[in-house]
Amino acid sequence: MDFKKITIIGVGLIGSSLALALRKKGYKGRITGLGRSEETLKMALELEIIDDYSTVHTEGVKDADLVVLASSVALYEQIVNNIKDHLKEGAIVTDVGSVKGDVLRTLTPLMPENVRFIAGHPIAGRECSGVKCATDDLFENAKCILTPDAGTDETALRQIKELWELTGARTVIMSPEEHDLTFAAVSHLPHIVAYSLINSILDINGEILRYGGGGLRDFTRIALSSPAMWRDICAHNRDEVLRTLKTFSSSLSRMISFVEESDWASLEKEFARAREARQLIESN
Amino acid sequence: MDFKKITIIGVGLIGSSLALALRKKGYKGRITGLGRSEETLKMALELEIIDDYSTVHTEGVKDADLVVLASSVALYEQIVNNIKDHLKEGAIVTDVGSVKGDVLRTLTPLMPENVRFIAGHPIAGRECSGVKCATDDLFENAKCILTPDAGTDETALRQIKELWELTGARTVIMSPEEHDLTFAAVSHLPHIVAYSLINSILDINGEILRYGGGGLRDFTRIALSSPAMWRDICAHNRDEVLRTLKTFSSSLSRMISFVEESDWASLEKEFARAREARQLIESN
Repeated sequence: MDFKKITIIGVGLIGSSLALALRKKGYKGRITGLGRSEETLKMALELEIIDDYSTVHTEGVKDADLVVLASSVALYEQIVNNIKDHLKEGAIVTDVGSVKGDVLRTLTPLMPENVRFIAGHPIAGRECSGVKCATDDLFENAKCILTPDAGTDETALRQIKELWELTGARTVIMSPEEHDLTFAAVSHLPHIVAYSLINSILDINGEILRYGGGGLRDFTRIALSSPAMWRDICAHNRDEVLRTLKTFSSSLSRMISFVEESDWASLEKEFARAREARQLIESN
Repeated sequence: MDFKKITIIGVGLIGSSLALALRKKGYKGRITGLGRSEETLKMALELEIIDDYSTVHTEGVKDADLVVLASSVALYEQIVNNIKDHLKEGAIVTDVGSVKGDVLRTLTPLMPENVRFIAGHPIAGRECSGVKCATDDLFENAKCILTPDAGTDETALRQIKELWELTGARTVIMSPEEHDLTFAAVSHLPHIVAYSLINSILDINGEILRYGGGGLRDFTRIALSSPAMWRDICAHNRDEVLRTLKTFSSSLSRMISFVEESDWASLEKEFARAREARQLIESN
């Protein structure tokens, strides 16, 4: 990997874990942290996650061969507007956001002529967030989705592929559209459903949540995730999130009808279909 | 505990784990296994979970001071009709089913005059089912709900309370109605939602389930549970399940409206409300 300097904007869980993983796998270049909170950046420096830091966008990206956007997706546009005139000629910008179509549509037109943008999404996360939760093996065996479009530079794509593979991730190439529908279904939708399930239990009786066993705990663990982050993901993948919500709503209505009609055979068939599919991912 | 002989009808996960837990905590009496599958009963005997077994209801309950119904709830009525004329005078019958109102309404009128019925529900389970998954610590620190009604014998209730406390469970007294609404909300509803979520992902695209990360895995683990068992639970707690499904459906519709209207502040508020409540059960 020929990046002499990498600037990571947003030293949260993903940004910090990326820095740690690169170090562990022998990356010898410089890693600069960039963000709004000096306290966080100082902590990252003390934990030897980054080599130096800046809170000034224009300063932090100077001479960087690679800039990684690892902040909230909602901040990308503003950040790129701040840094675009200060990027090194030939630099690559990449990101780690959970939505891709919207990011490509927004950022591609902002990139200077000699800067190449590669959109990416490592499928890794924990309910625990922030620099203090970073680990050097977060991406080990994780998938990292890269979503080139018609204008994507092949050389830059290969370099970002190598970057993620160095961290232990397996890269997968997908169109932005396929990515956004897939992750609306397998990630964004389950988060909304988990939040909604908790709220409906509260609506029934706020006192009863504590009677839930291990099943409810596991089921709703993702409801511990950051509301602001999930608000932003929904906002930036609105159409696909809506599409999956409506599909889920239909599936739920079907279940409700079977219960209403006491059609237990059909209800069991629905349960069995789901279980069979779920068993397949268990054995993966 | 003064039960000289306990007969457990259904040596699945719960029935077998109860036997193992009682033994571990020093129960000295006889434990008889009763069920339809001789293969299962033989295995339970070989694993020293039970002392002897029978596949004949009338034989197996003979002389038992306590009979534990640990089969599917759907079989209770038939089983009790088979055994009722063979129960020992003064025996206690109890159960471990996930629904209580329906069980009490069905079984109470069937009990002979000198036999007392205590309805119970240990909140313990695993996705793994059957005698091979039984453990002697399944009830350790678990809640066990007992649901007496107006006709319940206080002495028998106390004895069943002691039985569960011996296994390490903490007993909670609740009305059957309160139990059924509570567990419709915190257990039955989440199972239906998990099955439904998997099905909606299949409806979107059968191939994408494998892209789900650890969050989806945890979220849908309960969809590995037995479809037949959950069909029966829904059938025997129909009204409360329906009530919670409708509450959930309203909560979901609210979320869908916020996404449709791009009302991200309200969506975040919903997420935050859920997260706050979920954090409380995490710290319990």
